[in-house]
Amino acid sequence: MTDASTVPDERETYSYLGPAGTFTEAALSQVEAAEEQIWRPVSNVGEALADVTSGRSVAAMIAIENSIEGGVTASQDALATIPGLRIAGEYEVAISFSLVVRPGTRLEDVRTVSAHPVAYGQCRRWLHVNVPGHEHVVANSNISSVNALFDERGDIDAAIAPRGVEDRFDVSVLGESIQDNKTARTRFALVSLSRELPARTGADKTSLIVELPEEFPGSLMVMLEQFATRGVNLSMITSRPLPDRIGSYRFVLDLDGHIDDARVADALLGLRRFSPHVIFLGSYPRADRKPVVVDPKWGDEHFGEAVDWLSSLRG
Amino acid sequence: MTDASTVPDERETYSYLGPAGTFTEAALSQVEAAEEQIWRPVSNVGEALADVTSGRSVAAMIAIENSIEGGVTASQDALATIPGLRIAGEYEVAISFSLVVRPGTRLEDVRTVSAHPVAYGQCRRWLHVNVPGHEHVVANSNISSVNALFDERGDIDAAIAPRGVEDRFDVSVLGESIQDNKTARTRFALVSLSRELPARTGADKTSLIVELPEEFPGSLMVMLEQFATRGVNLSMITSRPLPDRIGSYRFVLDLDGHIDDARVADALLGLRRFSPHVIFLGSYPRADRKPVVVDPKWGDEHFGEAVDWLSSLRG
Amino acid sequence: MTDASTVPDERETYSYLGPAGTFTEAALSQVEAAEEQIWRPVSNVGEALADVTSGRSVAAMIAIENSIEGGVTASQDALATIPGLRIAGEYEVAISFSLVVRPGTRLEDVRTVSAHPVAYGQCRRWLHVNVPGHEHVVANSNISSVNALFDERGDIDAAIAPRGVEDRFDVSVLGESIQDNKTARTRFALVSLSRELPARTGADKTSLIVELPEEFPGSLMVMLEQFATRGVNLSMITSRPLPDRIGSYRFVLDLDGHIDDARVADALLGLRRFSPHVIFLGSYPRADRKPVVVDPKWGDEHFGEAVDWLSSLRG
Amino acid sequence: MTDASTVPDERETYSYLGPAGTFTEAALSQVEAAEEQIWRPVSNVGEALADVTSGRSVAAMIAIENSIEGGVTASQDALATIPGLRIAGEYEVAISFSLVVRPGTRLEDVRTVSAHPVAYGQCRRWLHVNVPGHEHVVANSNISSVNALFDERGDIDAAIAPRGVEDRFDVSVLGESIQDNKTARTRFALVSLSRELPARTGADKTSLIVELPEEFPGSLMVMLEQFATRGVNLSMITSRPLPDRIGSYRFVLDLDGHIDDARVADALLGLRRFSPHVIFLGSYPRADRKPVVVDPKWGDEHFGEAVDWLSSLRG
Repeated sequence: MTDASTVPDERETYSYLGPAGTFTEAALSQVEAAEEQIWRPVSNVGEALADVTSGRSVAAMIAIENSIEGGVTASQDALATIPGLRIAGEYEVAISFSLVVRPGTRLEDVRTVSAHPVAYGQCRRWLHVNVPGHEHVVANSNISSVNALFDERGDIDAAIAPRGVEDRFDVSVLGESIQDNKTARTRFALVSLSRELPARTGADKTSLIVELPEEFPGSLMVMLEQFATRGVNLSMITSRPLPDRIGSYRFVLDLDGHIDDARVADALLGLRRFSPHVIFLGSYPRADRKPVVVDPKWGDEHFGEAVDWLSSLRG
Repeated sequence: MTDASTVPDERETYSYLGPAGTFTEAALSQVEAAEEQIWRPVSNVGEALADVTSGRSVAAMIAIENSIEGGVTASQDALATIPGLRIAGEYEVAISFSLVVRPGTRLEDVRTVSAHPVAYGQCRRWLHVNVPGHEHVVANSNISSVNALFDERGDIDAAIAPRGVEDRFDVSVLGESIQDNKTARTRFALVSLSRELPARTGADKTSLIVELPEEFPGSLMVMLEQFATRGVNLSMITSRPLPDRIGSYRFVLDLDGHIDDARVADALLGLRRFSPHVIFLGSYPRADRKPVVVDPKWGDEHFGEAVDWLSSLRG
Repeated sequence: MTDASTVPDERETYSYLGPAGTFTEAALSQVEAAEEQIWRPVSNVGEALADVTSGRSVAAMIAIENSIEGGVTASQDALATIPGLRIAGEYEVAISFSLVVRPGTRLEDVRTVSAHPVAYGQCRRWLHVNVPGHEHVVANSNISSVNALFDERGDIDAAIAPRGVEDRFDVSVLGESIQDNKTARTRFALVSLSRELPARTGADKTSLIVELPEEFPGSLMVMLEQFATRGVNLSMITSRPLPDRIGSYRFVLDLDGHIDDARVADALLGLRRFSPHVIFLGSYPRADRKPVVVDPKWGDEHFGEAVDWLSSLRG
Repeated sequence: MTDASTVPDERETYSYLGPAGTFTEAALSQVEAAEEQIWRPVSNVGEALADVTSGRSVAAMIAIENSIEGGVTASQDALATIPGLRIAGEYEVAISFSLVVRPGTRLEDVRTVSAHPVAYGQCRRWLHVNVPGHEHVVANSNISSVNALFDERGDIDAAIAPRGVEDRFDVSVLGESIQDNKTARTRFALVSLSRELPARTGADKTSLIVELPEEFPGSLMVMLEQFATRGVNLSMITSRPLPDRIGSYRFVLDLDGHIDDARVADALLGLRRFSPHVIFLGSYPRADRKPVVVDPKWGDEHFGEAVDWLSSLRG
């Protein structure tokens, strides 16, 4: 793990929502290929994706669901409008915050708490009970809150920061897992321009963005038939209004399986014939590595058997 | 047009519901390949198909819809249970009856009318008005009714027979198109064991028999989705209870298009994956030669474009 | 069981395909309400239904599936075009033929066999083995074949007739269940103008005739969704081309359940909104009295619960 | 428009994401009933809804789509889990930012810009061009950024704030509509416990949260059939994983129409029968007041006609 330097460098660059210490960085730390490479902190999704399209970075890590660091809708819209982007992998990070202080500070001494507004909102209940009467001082990120502890002008007593921040800073932890929701996780995607498809693992996901061809009741259902009729399960669907056509929508979809699965490939063919605009964002291993369970009747073998049968009919 | 003979013969044999003069023979007379070949009259569908499976005949003409000579359900069940049969072509015959007499007989002299019971039922109204008080004498077929006119023991004054019978027999026509329904047509199929597919003409039909995999509400709908989702139109559907499984069904289907149409081939793949038992009865020109109109989005080009797109995704 | 008489009579008349002794009469004999009433034999479906619409008969028994006495397609088309008809009940008769002779005749003496052509076709195999070399003499019905045995002019040695004919005629039975297909059954319907619905029994059937509103791929599927989406199972579907509109169809449907079942009533509402032309032919007990098995989620209680919920939303 | 006071007060309280001047307050200012009432600024969605459930406020204004003030996912999950909440109305606010300064400050003098992090991210491009080399100082909200201009300790030269902020503060506007996206709008919902349904206007929306009963491919499609088969159009759909059941989902849905529209009521019945858990969030006028266009075949009259027809069948 290292920062960008000015000397010539053969390493590749990965952009992420910084600074170092964010949950997005925690997601990036799960990427094997990124080890020993340059990690470039940026301040929002647009910047991260611009790094990729300009060639400055080989890939960017962006939040795609449930992010407390923001950017999900921006991510979806960016993927729909910036051509050529592909998702190379999915990563999940458990969202967990600690209250940290300069060594020696006791909980009863805490008067001011530095925190990013969203993180602060997530820890309200714990703070109400454990640090009653404190004052919230706004921080720009989940890491700059910690930096504020060491600001010499500062009067910050404590900071809310991602779990593990004590490995990076000389701080003591006064509270762990202090967020209201103990099970929250954020999903991230590693995005690049590479056309190389991650190999099929049996625990894969495929992401698509699809526009409906017409506005009529049932049009969405016709789209979904493309999946149902081939036994392809969806794990996420979100409609997004098209900015330039009132009453028209694009759909952001995640489906179980890999483009190299016969049923997924066949569903993609059906979608393409149905929709004026299908964006294939990639097939990649699921973050949870849980194998996709498929009834044998939707398996490759069954698809192949049907193809053989069709050939036999034609003699 | 000739009958079977005992001398060695290189001609091929076509079976049909006889005797000569039936509507089924009229259908056979539309088959170019059958010209100058042996036409073998048989007495029911089972016999006709047995001729084909035994190799005695190269093909058989059988009624498949609206027949007044009977046999439609028998045809459907036979096609579902006798393996290897294919439909090579579809033919339509307008059902039209004449009242014929020995030359010299006048309408007012007619006391007895010979007619096959079904034909008689079809002409009831005309007879009621034009030959009041007559007696019906039953004939075994639409042609044996005419033979009865010349039976020496006989006391038959008139016969109901297919239009055109006067070309074959020395009879006078006292009434033409005397059947109640002026527009009735019967559809026939030429059935053989040949695996050679009739070439695609753009005005084709494909016939199938499909069993549903399970008995649940909506199972039929799942089957039909295979067609709807590829823009394939059905022109005929009939359910037939499976004799050996209570509450289970097979479906006899005609669809617009040829197995060489991409959308039809793709629908067949979908059906095969869905159903435990699909019988392909053939793709063949429609009797009415009316081109199948297909929205370009279901055309071969569009299917091919989707295949190219899928390939491009995989790089 | 009695014939029509000319003296004034308070009994009601039931029409059926006669003469006495047909399978259709066997179906009528299953109708409790018809006991001790007048049974009027007619010669085809049209005549039987005309008796009903003219008020001459209170009901008619007609074949609706698999009939060997003919008339199924005619029945379907008549029900679609004659307004006001309702099916009051369904009846099944096992199709079984006997070979009967005048007492004293031995099998080896039989030279001529009188038989309705369709019945004759059904018994071909047995006759081939047991009465080789016989001559077929055509009869007008399955009963007139027996009458021919006693025709003084006649030279008929044996007759094919429905099982049980020996109870009516002084004949000996030389072969029982001689038809090729040992399990064939014909379904009949008792048709009337009565608007009184047979009470719900839990083993009911509802018959409909539905036209599709437009000709487009998937239109049939939209119709079937009306059933699938309410858990209503179909037990029969047959397409019939509309005589006056090329490429348009009506569908003859039987579904499991009674109009008083909430799910059936709701499906009827959906059909009516969808189709320009729905004919309700009636809800009536199934011939086999087999209860319709319905998942509780499609039961009346569940439908009622949803209605209560909707009311509660509106406050 | 007034703040809460300590003297007894008969006015009602409305909670909103404060402080005064936010886009959420702009949404609240569109609510007629809220005029002259108490407006209570809170700091997040949870707090706003807690005010409603505790009875402290009669209603809360929360962001439900595309918010730059955050909280959309939190809103959806809160509406799914807090019982009894209803949406009483939908409001839209155009997202537009100004760069404001103390009177007299010139653009070229601006060194430090106070801004909420998300707002700052939205205006990056304009700032890059017009205020190159500035420093970003984080503010807690889109209004506290302006307060910072008047902080005596402060060294803030400019602030990013919602359009119109100059009506409230003594500031000069140096840039208007400076955000990158010129057409962004946020949708807000006014949420309360009231069971009184807003009257049908013809330009209505109905919001639902629905759980799928089982995890199988096609389950989502079965849900959507409930809408398609009644001509009900969806304007928004988002899947949310259920926290406690892996692979299970709830769906947040907006549909065109009011529960008093027959087709919507019927779709609700269908949904309720299908799903173990349907939350009705309300029917209310659309923010854009655009009438819902409905084919007559899905109109109330047509639904009523079908009901009459069904009654007539039962006599």
